Amino acid sequence: MKHIISPTDLTLDELDELLRLSEDIYKDPKKYSDACYRKRLATLFYEPSTRTRLSFEAAMLNLGGSVIGFSSADSSSAAKGESIADTIRVVSSYADICAIRHPKEGAPLVASLHSSIPVINAGDGGHNHPTQTFTDLFTIKQLKGRFEGLTVGFCGDLKFGRTVHSLISALSRYSNIRFILISPDELKVPAYIKDEILDANNIPYEEVRSLEKAIPYLDILYMTRVQKERFFNEEDYIRLKDTYILDSNKMALAKEDMLVLHPLPRVNEIAVEVDNDPRAVYFKQAQFGVYLRMALIMMLLRD
Amino acid sequence: MKHIISPTDLTLDELDELLRLSEDIYKDPKKYSDACYRKRLATLFYEPSTRTRLSFEAAMLNLGGSVIGFSSADSSSAAKGESIADTIRVVSSYADICAIRHPKEGAPLVASLHSSIPVINAGDGGHNHPTQTFTDLFTIKQLKGRFEGLTVGFCGDLKFGRTVHSLISALSRYSNIRFILISPDELKVPAYIKDEILDANNIPYEEVRSLEKAIPYLDILYMTRVQKERFFNEEDYIRLKDTYILDSNKMALAKEDMLVLHPLPRVNEIAVEVDNDPRAVYFKQAQFGVYLRMALIMMLLRD
Amino acid sequence: MKHIISPTDLTLDELDELLRLSEDIYKDPKKYSDACYRKRLATLFYEPSTRTRLSFEAAMLNLGGSVIGFSSADSSSAAKGESIADTIRVVSSYADICAIRHPKEGAPLVASLHSSIPVINAGDGGHNHPTQTFTDLFTIKQLKGRFEGLTVGFCGDLKFGRTVHSLISALSRYSNIRFILISPDELKVPAYIKDEILDANNIPYEEVRSLEKAIPYLDILYMTRVQKERFFNEEDYIRLKDTYILDSNKMALAKEDMLVLHPLPRVNEIAVEVDNDPRAVYFKQAQFGVYLRMALIMMLLRD
Repeated sequence: MKHIISPTDLTLDELDELLRLSEDIYKDPKKYSDACYRKRLATLFYEPSTRTRLSFEAAMLNLGGSVIGFSSADSSSAAKGESIADTIRVVSSYADICAIRHPKEGAPLVASLHSSIPVINAGDGGHNHPTQTFTDLFTIKQLKGRFEGLTVGFCGDLKFGRTVHSLISALSRYSNIRFILISPDELKVPAYIKDEILDANNIPYEEVRSLEKAIPYLDILYMTRVQKERFFNEEDYIRLKDTYILDSNKMALAKEDMLVLHPLPRVNEIAVEVDNDPRAVYFKQAQFGVYLRMALIMMLLRD
Repeated sequence: MKHIISPTDLTLDELDELLRLSEDIYKDPKKYSDACYRKRLATLFYEPSTRTRLSFEAAMLNLGGSVIGFSSADSSSAAKGESIADTIRVVSSYADICAIRHPKEGAPLVASLHSSIPVINAGDGGHNHPTQTFTDLFTIKQLKGRFEGLTVGFCGDLKFGRTVHSLISALSRYSNIRFILISPDELKVPAYIKDEILDANNIPYEEVRSLEKAIPYLDILYMTRVQKERFFNEEDYIRLKDTYILDSNKMALAKEDMLVLHPLPRVNEIAVEVDNDPRAVYFKQAQFGVYLRMALIMMLLRD
Repeated sequence: MKHIISPTDLTLDELDELLRLSEDIYKDPKKYSDACYRKRLATLFYEPSTRTRLSFEAAMLNLGGSVIGFSSADSSSAAKGESIADTIRVVSSYADICAIRHPKEGAPLVASLHSSIPVINAGDGGHNHPTQTFTDLFTIKQLKGRFEGLTVGFCGDLKFGRTVHSLISALSRYSNIRFILISPDELKVPAYIKDEILDANNIPYEEVRSLEKAIPYLDILYMTRVQKERFFNEEDYIRLKDTYILDSNKMALAKEDMLVLHPLPRVNEIAVEVDNDPRAVYFKQAQFGVYLRMALIMMLLRD
């Protein structure tokens, strides 16, 4: 039995298989509409996250399975002081697989240690969110056909952005990748990412401040939000925020086949005028997330 | 693809078809138990409303479909600042049709503009609640056999009552209807309803203060709640509230085939002693709401 | 049509049938996977209780049925002042059976008086929680093979513990049972339980303060939590709490075939080191709860 706590819990071969199965589901979803008949997913969301929860639930229902769960800690036994170890032992009697979202880093890992059903980490604090990373990879693979040789730009909050760190790690396992890290000085990628992942794997990268200057070189632009509360003072925030807003003017500088990804929810870091640009694939990315989760649930229940 | 944002989004012919299909479902629900097999409803409730949500969910499950959703804004991405336009674009990948309840007027309309699946307005603030209006119409049609020639009384809060305004508009499309509008002066039907709907369509109506005096003339009595907070002072409220409570004494003055409707929840505006009167059809009305919603979901998914 | 408001709503014969059916389901759950096809359970939880709610929902889904409901009063019409009598009358149109959890004693009973579908009390305040009691009985029957002749210890808060009172009553219907009631003086079993149940049925029992001294004589040890807020002062709580924590040392004094039950959630009244002891059956008990609820839903829908 396998749990998915971090994106690296899958080997490159397993990841390949996951992406292939996701593609096959995408091409003919009906073929899989009974693949998990009489199987049940439990969605244990100790922190609200509509998009992720609904994506998991849609995935399981698409496979002909059923769903039980809760969408916030208030309505869970956690409020009565129950440990996640006890909760998962009980839920193991109710369902065949579970997805856990928790505000505390490591909670899904603890759950997996006591679970008799596969546990998928659906986001633990600022830590890991493997199905987002897999979805990002699937989107790139599906729309670019490859990872090799791509120049991938990450823009916005690269310091706290969990999805950015995970995707950098995941892409660093492929050859001939190049990164451009676009952020204000305050929100640069942490040193351990540079040391342990980028330098350790000899991945070429640049750190720059201007999205405008970097955008012409990119094959992929991964946007994230610059949150006001990350800045020491409002002046810096106001001075910087527009620099990291993607609009039609900046899109005009990009390659014709550059793709714009975003983990969503988007607030204002991508102007709505960009939505109609065929290079804006963030809503397609959300759709791919369902196929990816269908494939993952299938693989974990098959093992 | 059609959205249902306001009761008038259906032509009279479409409404006829909806009521006919609802009746057919009511007569033989089992015939439709696979009508939406493998279709999915998303219930996006940014404001709690158990009755409406469960009615939609029961409707979809009765049709053999499945349901995902959320029941309050806290557990949705709205809390993270996502626009409803973005939410609906993502949910379009998860479901085949959706019902939206939102505290802000117009939110379901905005959603429909960005949706690739049919959107049903399940109530937007004090504005529209089309499936309630359709249910009211279905109840009248089913139990009276016609709309023409009826004298319909509306009682209680006619100023703020969304369901009252919608039902007045909807009934005004039929010929030979007559209204008696029963309310305190403070809670009379707004002028635009009188000008743009009643007078514009030459509908005869009276405004009266006494339920007791009006009740003998009615074929339909549509009750609504008089909320304390609508009054300027407690004295007026106390003086008036009993006048608008329907009890056995007032029922004794009514026609033998008058029907009492109420959108529910009821607080104390109808005494519980009335519940056993065969003319009290508000619980039957709630039951009809499920058949009506089944028919509406079927029609929208068929288009 | 039958409602289950209290554990004694089933005769001994009906209870026997329930336990037999539960066992049959446990042995071959797949045989029952369509037993409630096209039937629907409504879970009306006016108070959060993840474990109980998910157990009911898992039970209904295991039987091939569907589920609608709410998990807290905030998202229900109760917030708008609707009576439970009205709610259940409406929900009767949406579902075939319902489980109600409510903070107020008697609320499920009131609901049952106005319901046209079977009502199961899923816990009403400190009052009744019949499916927990049935689950306890099923666990004992399944793992001990009998009720007759057992010495059953109850430990912890015997004053306020609803599950304790219910299980004492339920077991008192069998012959040759003996109880050892282990608690601090402050939290002894109430007098009416002793008078009306134990003495009235000539059941032998002892009241003791020491778990350590009592444990060697027990066939069943039913643990409950000693809540800090039950004590008049912190000193007493600190002095007493460890006495009522079950750990490996105390387990070493027990019979080799003694069973440890707990209604869960457990906080710290059973040390986690005990979990791996084969005599610790509280997680198995939670699993049995699903089979028990499957059997109960089947029986009530069959009547």
